[in-house]
Amino acid sequence: MENSGACQGLTRPIRCIVKLGGAAITCKNELEKINEENLGTVSSQLRQAMSSGPDSQKILGMDWSKRPGESELCCDVGGFDDQISCDSSNFVVVHGAGSFGHFQASKSGVHKGGLDKSLVKAGFVATRISVTNLNLEIVRALAAAGIPSVGMSPFSCGWLTSERNLESADLSMVVKAIESGFVPVLHGDAVLDSQLGCTILSGDVIIKHLAAYLKPEYVIFLTDVFGVYDRPPSEPEAVLLREIAVTEEGSWSVVKPNYGSTNKPVEITVAAHDTTGGMVTKIAEAAMIAKLGIDVYIVKAATSHSQRALSGEIRRGSIPDDWLGTVIKFAGKPAQH
Amino acid sequence: MENSGACQGLTRPIRCIVKLGGAAITCKNELEKINEENLGTVSSQLRQAMSSGPDSQKILGMDWSKRPGESELCCDVGGFDDQISCDSSNFVVVHGAGSFGHFQASKSGVHKGGLDKSLVKAGFVATRISVTNLNLEIVRALAAAGIPSVGMSPFSCGWLTSERNLESADLSMVVKAIESGFVPVLHGDAVLDSQLGCTILSGDVIIKHLAAYLKPEYVIFLTDVFGVYDRPPSEPEAVLLREIAVTEEGSWSVVKPNYGSTNKPVEITVAAHDTTGGMVTKIAEAAMIAKLGIDVYIVKAATSHSQRALSGEIRRGSIPDDWLGTVIKFAGKPAQH
Repeated sequence: MENSGACQGLTRPIRCIVKLGGAAITCKNELEKINEENLGTVSSQLRQAMSSGPDSQKILGMDWSKRPGESELCCDVGGFDDQISCDSSNFVVVHGAGSFGHFQASKSGVHKGGLDKSLVKAGFVATRISVTNLNLEIVRALAAAGIPSVGMSPFSCGWLTSERNLESADLSMVVKAIESGFVPVLHGDAVLDSQLGCTILSGDVIIKHLAAYLKPEYVIFLTDVFGVYDRPPSEPEAVLLREIAVTEEGSWSVVKPNYGSTNKPVEITVAAHDTTGGMVTKIAEAAMIAKLGIDVYIVKAATSHSQRALSGEIRRGSIPDDWLGTVIKFAGKPAQH
Repeated sequence: MENSGACQGLTRPIRCIVKLGGAAITCKNELEKINEENLGTVSSQLRQAMSSGPDSQKILGMDWSKRPGESELCCDVGGFDDQISCDSSNFVVVHGAGSFGHFQASKSGVHKGGLDKSLVKAGFVATRISVTNLNLEIVRALAAAGIPSVGMSPFSCGWLTSERNLESADLSMVVKAIESGFVPVLHGDAVLDSQLGCTILSGDVIIKHLAAYLKPEYVIFLTDVFGVYDRPPSEPEAVLLREIAVTEEGSWSVVKPNYGSTNKPVEITVAAHDTTGGMVTKIAEAAMIAKLGIDVYIVKAATSHSQRALSGEIRRGSIPDDWLGTVIKFAGKPAQH
């Protein structure tokens, strides 16, 4: 299946859907704490990748909120004088929850549904407060870096599930926001489920649906490791898988490093690593996107490697040897045996 | 025109749409500052009005976010044990912007449109950040008081204008949220405009549209004064208008205090008072809702008067003499002359 062009309603194709992994932008070991440094670097890399102009152009911040301890709002309106808004490439951002929302969701069992229980209903409210709080902070960080970001919560945009599977999603406002020159910022959210009452919709499911509908040139997953390894990356012998090919049937094999001509797929150690939606899940999700003819890059956030992936450099040629990350590509029909 | 019952899709009618006026819940003279005391009282009054059970029932807070300076999240999950979520009356909350958003919107001219100008685009982003920040804080305050509140931004819910007039609004998610037992919290927002590119959608326009569609029993505007006066309330001779009757044609007259049998409408001093959408505008907006057969109460927030209005007491009988506020009612067809 080839990428058959941009979706209806879009006059310019989407260049990239970026997933900001929860682990990359929040502090894993501290509840509801943002990794400010990573988020700042990611925001600035994104802005550079989006803007066609020279890097030296003055950055016009778009978060004019009051800073803690100050009484005046922060806004250099003069910098915008008469400036015509420059066209930036179409990007969409989706972020995970990291250390936001998980506590509230797991304490109450929101993913299992049952809104007739007061604990589940309260957990739904508490989860949404936590993830929309994170969404606001990410929108602010992107805006401060000069990206015209607008928060869009799946719950209120009409994303609905049925027994945890996506049932419907109204993307018309996402398309309208993109067409108006904004960068929609969606997130994993607590949503209504027609069978269970409610559940959790993950950022990865959102990405998959957006990719199928918006047909971006490529999708990037920014994570806290360099890519997909053949075993938990903490193990000394772990090998980074540089390129994975996906067949039309959705099966996949490692192309690089080359494990010889045996065609024997690499054995990936998953056991403990996979309990929290680890690498096999990640490859499977990415493979479903790659199957649509959309290249997927899994790369460490806030590094030179993420910068090169965001800029489109990896897309344009063969994968440079000094680039660390995992590319997941559609390989066409499998060879006949 | 009579209130012909609840809207399609709702199994139980909406009891009340409440407008939290920006002036009542934020500090007028300080940018982006919430009036915590008022907001806390309003939230607790709302919860009491919604719950059918005794007041002594334990309040189960639904904001489990981390408090500043603490490392643990705040959640008394034990309190929810096995409790069946009790049905609360259907309420919808809409809030204004007060000292949030106005600075960003007016500095950039978002209401005038023109997204091709970088200042307007940045102002749109900055305005949305400010008003969604306020929305999050209000949702948190309501949740902390035990109200299952969910934030729903008009921009992302698909509210669109055409030359500043509401063109379309997808209320399906608002209805679904209410049906699932939640209290949607909407707000004045920056939205896309099919002619101008963008503009500001006010909380009052949102209320009017919601009232026409959801057909609540009554609508309450919580403000920072006791109601509508015949001249600026700061003037010593200002008289509180207790009851205003609206005809089918939308014209209105003061019923109480009784200005004699001359039928001469009271002269309302508007000049300076009306420049920022003052009392005549407020009466005109309220009259459009009352014309639908929906009683409107304009009352001072966080007082015993707002508590009585929220509880439905004013709705059930004649207006008590010791109740301060303005009631705007449909009077049926005007008498023939």
